Amino acid sequence: MSVVVTYPALKRVALAGGTHGNEMAGVVLAKYWMKNPAELQRKTFIGNTFISNPRATEKCVRYIDFDLNRCFTSKMLNTSATEDPSYELSRAKELNKIYGPKGSSDAFDLLIDMHNTTSNIGNCFIPMATQDHLTMQMLNYVQQQSLFSPCRAFIADLPLEDAFSLDCVGLHGLSFELGPQPQGVIRGEILQRMRGLVNCAYDFIDLFNQGQHFSECQVEGFQVTEKVDFPRNADGEIEAVIHPDLQDKDFLPLHPGDPIFLTLDGETITYNGDSVVYPVFINEAAYYEKKLAFWKTKKITVTVPPIQVQKN
Amino acid sequence: MSVVVTYPALKRVALAGGTHGNEMAGVVLAKYWMKNPAELQRKTFIGNTFISNPRATEKCVRYIDFDLNRCFTSKMLNTSATEDPSYELSRAKELNKIYGPKGSSDAFDLLIDMHNTTSNIGNCFIPMATQDHLTMQMLNYVQQQSLFSPCRAFIADLPLEDAFSLDCVGLHGLSFELGPQPQGVIRGEILQRMRGLVNCAYDFIDLFNQGQHFSECQVEGFQVTEKVDFPRNADGEIEAVIHPDLQDKDFLPLHPGDPIFLTLDGETITYNGDSVVYPVFINEAAYYEKKLAFWKTKKITVTVPPIQVQKN
Repeated sequence: MSVVVTYPALKRVALAGGTHGNEMAGVVLAKYWMKNPAELQRKTFIGNTFISNPRATEKCVRYIDFDLNRCFTSKMLNTSATEDPSYELSRAKELNKIYGPKGSSDAFDLLIDMHNTTSNIGNCFIPMATQDHLTMQMLNYVQQQSLFSPCRAFIADLPLEDAFSLDCVGLHGLSFELGPQPQGVIRGEILQRMRGLVNCAYDFIDLFNQGQHFSECQVEGFQVTEKVDFPRNADGEIEAVIHPDLQDKDFLPLHPGDPIFLTLDGETITYNGDSVVYPVFINEAAYYEKKLAFWKTKKITVTVPPIQVQKN
Repeated sequence: MSVVVTYPALKRVALAGGTHGNEMAGVVLAKYWMKNPAELQRKTFIGNTFISNPRATEKCVRYIDFDLNRCFTSKMLNTSATEDPSYELSRAKELNKIYGPKGSSDAFDLLIDMHNTTSNIGNCFIPMATQDHLTMQMLNYVQQQSLFSPCRAFIADLPLEDAFSLDCVGLHGLSFELGPQPQGVIRGEILQRMRGLVNCAYDFIDLFNQGQHFSECQVEGFQVTEKVDFPRNADGEIEAVIHPDLQDKDFLPLHPGDPIFLTLDGETITYNGDSVVYPVFINEAAYYEKKLAFWKTKKITVTVPPIQVQKN
């Protein structure tokens, strides 16, 4: 029997959209909830909804100068203003002042960030850290709701100082990543799923704050092992595309010998590893410039201890 | 029995990709064919492949200053250089010099432009004009190939001087519009379909040039009748999304009373017309800024007379 882990009640909760200004589920919902907050009110807390990258959202682009969601490492947040004059880095520092500072007890209790992807990722939950039992219990709670089944967990598990995404500014943090949805487009069913997931996460927080005990659980996740780039020519241009047999197969097993790329000359390139992997973020538009065709992941199971709110 | 219409052989044929720099099927194929032209060589002509908007292609954006594919009206091509200093308008004039001038006998015989859309449009052929019997016979030829079935025709049929797209610079012109594909992404099956369609069009030209007689035919098309915008608030922001029941239903009948939008408050907005229409370009990313949620079209049938190449 595991010892119950306790956390203070989550009173200061923030929800971000538009960290990438062309990921429209978060943009549209954040704007709506900023004007119509009633839907997200709960007995024990009132969430704070905001647009994290207003200029990129205004222009419907991912970012203006630099990817905002790569700006939140401790090193970047601690650069002097003159070292990097990019809009996004200065905005990251501003957000860190409001919702952080990252890693300090002054930070917001929870920060949720809404993203979407062109990959066929379905419902995906990206916890800040598997060692954050509260976030992992929330993940388990969401996964148990049949409405969102399956809701997979994408696990990067970086040390806090290296964690680069907005959500890691909170004491607890996570991103919802939904797909497939083109950049600049809002699809009704993606909007409805994102809306349901945020409400479900808020319900969990409310139950937690009210004293509900969450039992020990086993949570399945997909842990990043390796980055795979497209085959490229000397000019850096892609020479092959994701093979149609791999396209849209996020989170499904890829076996040695399975097709992964199709060259423009018509040649199939197969996966030459020696064990099964689970590709994720296959053919995400924003990752071409990051030299990333997909992530290889392995399936893991995380045992999460029981949690309960700290008594006053 | 219709009189056979004759046209000179098509010797000067050009193929464009990257008119919109983030529509990747055309971008990737044009770059490939510029380096590897053998696949597009035919007995009777050699096509010329080019990137129409190199700066937008380099940045993987639709355009730099202004949508290039709206620059080819006679009025815009005839503005003086000082009236509009946008990159795209100056590039349009440059392209008009190389492949046109539009409407003159010096123009290229045929200009094909490769596009894709986030809409679920399948294979779509956009002829410059239904009165251009050669292009319409090519459309019929493509539609008869089961590989591309269905290949629908989207008909705008603007007077030549008002026609704004690159393909109208040629004596004959058309665009291939394939979807669904997110901006900035190349999907293998879209690439293969675009490749097949261009090769099929080139086969048709080669047969025509060699003297094949193409009989009178009936061609089905979808003719634009009206533009429909998203419901918007006073700030111009969308207040409703494409209804999930309409999403991805391009070219399918929309009946009076069918859902078209879903508001953020959860209300369904229905189509209040009094006859069936066929929505096309539903939820195309680039059309949000053009205030266009979808085009209403009506189904038409065009009778195309027989054609044959002019004897020397």
